[in-house]
Parts: sequence; structure tokens; C-alpha cells
Amino acid sequence: MIILILLLLLLSSSSSNVFVFVCGETWEPSWSRGAAKEAEKVAAIECSGHGRAYLDGLILNGHNQPLCECNTCYGGPNCSLFLSNCSADAESGDPYFLEPFWMGRAGSSGILVSGWHRMGYTYSDGSLMSEMLVKGIKKLHQLVGNAIITNASFIIFGSGATQLLNAAVYAFSPNSSLDSPAKVVTTAPCYPVYRTQTQFFNSRDNRYEGDTSIWKQNASRVNATFIEFVTSPNNPDGKLTKQILNGSNVKTIHDLAYYWPHFTAIPSPADEDLLIFTISKLTGHAGTRFGWAIIKDEGVYQRMSSYLNLNTIGVSREAQLRALKLLDVVLEAYAWVKCEREEDGNCYEILKAAKIEGREGSLYSAEDRYVRLSLIKTQDDFDILINYLTKLVHQE
Amino acid sequence: MIILILLLLLLSSSSSNVFVFVCGETWEPSWSRGAAKEAEKVAAIECSGHGRAYLDGLILNGHNQPLCECNTCYGGPNCSLFLSNCSADAESGDPYFLEPFWMGRAGSSGILVSGWHRMGYTYSDGSLMSEMLVKGIKKLHQLVGNAIITNASFIIFGSGATQLLNAAVYAFSPNSSLDSPAKVVTTAPCYPVYRTQTQFFNSRDNRYEGDTSIWKQNASRVNATFIEFVTSPNNPDGKLTKQILNGSNVKTIHDLAYYWPHFTAIPSPADEDLLIFTISKLTGHAGTRFGWAIIKDEGVYQRMSSYLNLNTIGVSREAQLRALKLLDVVLEAYAWVKCEREEDGNCYEILKAAKIEGREGSLYSAEDRYVRLSLIKTQDDFDILINYLTKLVHQE
Repeated sequence: MIILILLLLLLSSSSSNVFVFVCGETWEPSWSRGAAKEAEKVAAIECSGHGRAYLDGLILNGHNQPLCECNTCYGGPNCSLFLSNCSADAESGDPYFLEPFWMGRAGSSGILVSGWHRMGYTYSDGSLMSEMLVKGIKKLHQLVGNAIITNASFIIFGSGATQLLNAAVYAFSPNSSLDSPAKVVTTAPCYPVYRTQTQFFNSRDNRYEGDTSIWKQNASRVNATFIEFVTSPNNPDGKLTKQILNGSNVKTIHDLAYYWPHFTAIPSPADEDLLIFTISKLTGHAGTRFGWAIIKDEGVYQRMSSYLNLNTIGVSREAQLRALKLLDVVLEAYAWVKCEREEDGNCYEILKAAKIEGREGSLYSAEDRYVRLSLIKTQDDFDILINYLTKLVHQE
Repeated sequence: MIILILLLLLLSSSSSNVFVFVCGETWEPSWSRGAAKEAEKVAAIECSGHGRAYLDGLILNGHNQPLCECNTCYGGPNCSLFLSNCSADAESGDPYFLEPFWMGRAGSSGILVSGWHRMGYTYSDGSLMSEMLVKGIKKLHQLVGNAIITNASFIIFGSGATQLLNAAVYAFSPNSSLDSPAKVVTTAPCYPVYRTQTQFFNSRDNRYEGDTSIWKQNASRVNATFIEFVTSPNNPDGKLTKQILNGSNVKTIHDLAYYWPHFTAIPSPADEDLLIFTISKLTGHAGTRFGWAIIKDEGVYQRMSSYLNLNTIGVSREAQLRALKLLDVVLEAYAWVKCEREEDGNCYEILKAAKIEGREGSLYSAEDRYVRLSLIKTQDDFDILINYLTKLVHQE
């Protein structure tokens, strides 16, 4: 039977904003009371569904609580005013579409940061990166199946993918002035930051050299390292792409910010030399400034580490703590379902017959009695899933 | 009388770890309960006074709570084991000496970050910086008296002072390849990062050119921009220093990380063109990676902004939220004392006679009936202050 597992699934994944008060609960907050109360007070500020208030929101003279920050085209003290002469904002990539997901998981996704949390520069192993977060990232990729991480892989954190892009360009550039500067190339249409960043930091070790197509025929004959940016799915057109240049002198940086099941189909796990991901596209937390790279070569990892150390002494420990909590929630949200009836040896086929597309356990080196269901999708997707699961249980 | 004010002072500044439970308090945590409970549970883990447990501490298989992270030379599951063959760690600059200050202010210094806190890239004014935090920084400098900020000043945030150092070097370098690269110089003994960072990022726009002394006589005759790092108090020797080179082609970056009353006397507020501060030395939160610069010239500010945007898209919003809360506590900790008896027109002299050195209100454009007392010092300093204040009140 899959009934028990289903119940767990329904409980852990309910995205309605219901908070259960446990009457028998004897625990009372002590020193955390003030922070908890403050956060709930701010969260309760009504902004008419067209805005939100934040802990660190602007407080004007004469007020004692943060102001509502309204969505584009809404105004007024509680965002109820529709501004009719306003333009649609389709310029910025703020990922607010995932906000309801997090509001629905208020109880499991908040963190209380004490005043003395991680004041030092390093974690207990002397590094600038949370070992727990490295573990969480490995587990996530294994479950999602969008990147291969082996025991020999290296993981490094950046203040968003943005910082990692330039760190990777540095790491692939020659470190001797005797060598020609590396040639950084991109394929149109592409995310403009690859070019602007390389030109802006203007390193003697590399130079932006235009579109990949110019070098397609002769890259391997040029006496210089090429650094090719490959974005898949591509920004802005969403296409899955591959590297274009070939040759032992070509290094690739795979920007896989959108390579998640809620943006694209995942035909196979990525396995290239340097993969870059970011939490802003995975969970929608662009403001956290947290990204990571998966690297095969230890030398490249060491050079990127040096860049991160000298640029910002690693990533904010608060950002790492938040990312850890968010990944924990995402990992719970992915459901790992087991069919427990003896005759249900292939759970994938049973769910498929009930119109539920999952992923076979064998893809995760588990029995076919297991299936992974992805739950970080829209509310509609989730409702459809629950509908079919309920039907399946009733049939049984 | 100053009795009432003293009571306030004692209440707000008590650094003993006492948590008051208010019996008549009817508020109960709802969705914040889990996060609050988790934080208190971790804080309650006993590490024998020689270590601490963190929310994101390592959890081994078979355990359900984070492990103690022990101080240097201590080990064992609860850090009670003194490792006799261990060397003193005087290499890193982890500012744990301020940890008891924050543990004593547990109730006022914690923050509860909801799962949907500031997911977007920008604040409501479209910027990457919290306006509330800018206000807090201005207020702090005004109260401390270590930097002049006018209405024409610009403030910018960095992921620690580290990121701002290189952003400032960029901003002062020529932005045309027709000009010679700027010459970056330092005065020995000095913080090594100025040199290593400039050499590492290896920009075509600047180059590290050694010790300031080499250029002292002829900087103004050289056809290039000089960028001189001035560190005051100096790291490593603690001396207050001034710029050495002169000429219209000399730009200075004043690293004032230690220019706070708990490290040095403040002879006068700094008023140079570009001042850099960091929370790691002010409050001890090195791991937060938060620093700021105060800039006079708008063009320099714009160039530093571009650097910050292209490098990391600003500073982690969690780091900014934490910094805001920590500054709030620091601002309370500074005591602004008023002598209320009519005959006590000069409060500074009255306190001085009672062996309490404060700062005259006139330095803050207030009456001399006010004095500012600095409270972010050691527990010993605080005890001495309370002792003399108590004597003074009894005399009255």
C-alpha cells in the first residue's frame, strides 16, 4: 500500500497557509521570543495581496512598523491602489513566482539567527564553506538528476553565480604573462554579463573576443586558451545548448542556472568540467546571493578558491545558513515514494498507469519499487498530482 | 538628577545572561515556533565554555543535533578535553572577544528570517542597498564621532571591507587605455591584502608599485595616478597614520577598520575622500561579510557601484538584515546621558570629576547638558563605569 506514504506526502507538501497551534505544547520561547514576535508581526501586515512588508522595510517618522512594499503598478499605504498609467515590468528577473511556495511553508523554512551566530571567519574545519551545505547540494543533485557529482568532484560557493562566472574565467586563464591572454567567447543570443564582466574587470590574463562563431573553424589552431560560455537552457531563449568550439585549448564554463525540472526537461545529468548553479533560480532567492560550482579539476578549484578568498573572503555565513534551510525544504518537497505491496515491484509503471509521471528509482541506484516525484512546481501541477494520487489510493 | 537615566542604562546594558519570562504575556508563536525552538535548542548545547554549537553545525550520522565546535586547544564531544600538545592560535583575526557581548544581548540581537524574506534582487527603491541600514550607519558615525558624513556624502556596501578595497582601486584607476595604469602603493608594515589583491586581479588599469617611500619625493612629477592605501589605526602595529604622498594625481583609500573607540582613541572624525569600515571589527561579525565605504565624489561612488553590481550584484540581503539588527543594538549600547538638575549645565565636567570620561554633547551639536558614554568595551570597563556611576548617584 502506498496510503501511509501518501499521507506523509500530503502533510509535508500542503501549500495552503494554515498554521497549526499544538495545544499540548509546553515549550515557551525564552530569548527568541522578541525576534519571533517581530517576524510574525511584520508578516501579518496586510498589503492587499499586491505587496509585502519586510523586517528591514522602511519605517517613516511617526510610524512604528515597516511600510508595505508594493508590486509594480500598485501603490498606496497598503498597496490597494492600482496605478493605471503604469508600464508592465518585464525587465528584471525577480523570481517572485516562487514566493507562495515559501509562504505556504512558513513553519519549516524560517531561521532564527542568534546575535552570536558564526562570528568567526571560518567553519570548524578551517574552510569558508559550510560542510552541511556541501552535503545538501550533493544530495539535491543526486535526487534531481541534473548533474553528476562523484567523490572526486569539488564544490565551491560564490556570492551568486555572478561572482563564480568571473572566478571561473580567472581560473581558466593563463597565470603567466608569457602566455597570450585567454580569449573569452559567447554565442548569441546570450546573457550579457559574460561580456560586460570580462571587459569591466579588464584583466591582463584574458580578453573578451566576441562571438563563438568567429572562431568555430580555427580555434584549435590559435595559440591561446579559449574560454567558451555555454548556457543551458540558454538565457534568453531557453534552448538546451552544447559547446561549439573544440580543441585541447578550449575550456568551457557551463552556466546551468535554469537546468532544473521546473524550467526544462532534464534529458541527462550534466557531466562537464565546470558547472555553475544558483539558488536564485532554484528556490527564487535572488537576494541571498548564493551560487555554487561543481568542478572536476583540482587545480581549477584551487584557483577559484583563491579568487573567492581575495575577493570577498568567501560567501556571507548568513547566506549559507539560509541556503541550507531552503535546500532542506526543497529536499523534503521532492517526494521519494515507495510502493509497499509485494506485487508492486515496479512502482514507476503503477504510477504511470495512474497518469503520474515520476522517475524510476533505478536512476538513483535504488530498486524500482521506488519513484521520485518532483513537487517544486506550480500549485496547479501540485493539485493535479494530488488528484491522481487520491484516485489511485481509492482504487486500491 | 541622573538616577532615572542610570536605571535605563543599567537595564539596557546588563551583559549578564538572564532571560526574563513575562508571565502575563499572552502572545504565542505560530509559524515561527519551529525556528525559535530550533535556535534555543542549539544555543542550549553545553560545550563546557570552550566551544559552541551552531544551527548549521555538522551533524554526524546517528546524531540529531549539531556537534560542539571547540576553541583552539580543546576537543572531545563537549570541548572539555584540553589538548596539551597544541599551539596557541594567534594567526587568525577571528573577533570572538565580542561573543559574550552578543550572548548577553540574546533577546535583542536575534533575527527571525522568514522563508520568503526579500527574495527579489532589489529593495523597494530599486537599489541593492537597504535604506534603513544606510540610515543606521549615518546615525552610528554621528554618535561615535569617528567619521564625518554630510548630506553630500555617498555610502556603499561591500561583502566585507575586502571587496571594497579592490572596488576602490578600480574606481580610482583611469578608465581609458590611453592613460598609464594607476600605481597602487602601501606603507610598510602593512596589511598584505592591498598588494596581493591588486596583483591577483591583475587589471590593465592599475599595478602594484611597492612601498610609498619610493615615490615620496617625486609622485607629483610622475605622469600617472597614484592610489595610496592609508590604514589608521595601522594593521599590524596599531599606529594612527596619515597619507604620505602629495599631489593632484594622488588618490587615497583610508582603511579605517579599527577606527572605533574600543580599539583606539578617536582624536577627530575622519573626513578624507574615501573611508572604508567593516562590521567585523565593529561588532565582531567577521563571518557576515559586511563592510561600507563613505565617499565624497559622486563619480567614484558610481564606479564603485558598477564594480559591486558586476562582481556580486550587491551584498547578501541576509547579511544586510543582520547588520541592521546588530547596529540597532550597538546604537542602544552607546548611552546618551543627560544631567537633568538645573545646576548641572556641564554634564561632561560633572562626570569627569566622578572619574567618568565621556564625550561632550557639543561635539554632537547638542547642549553640554548631554554626554555620550561608550559601552562597547570589555566587561571590566563596563563594571568600572557602573561602579563610578553608582558612587556618583549615591553622592547626589
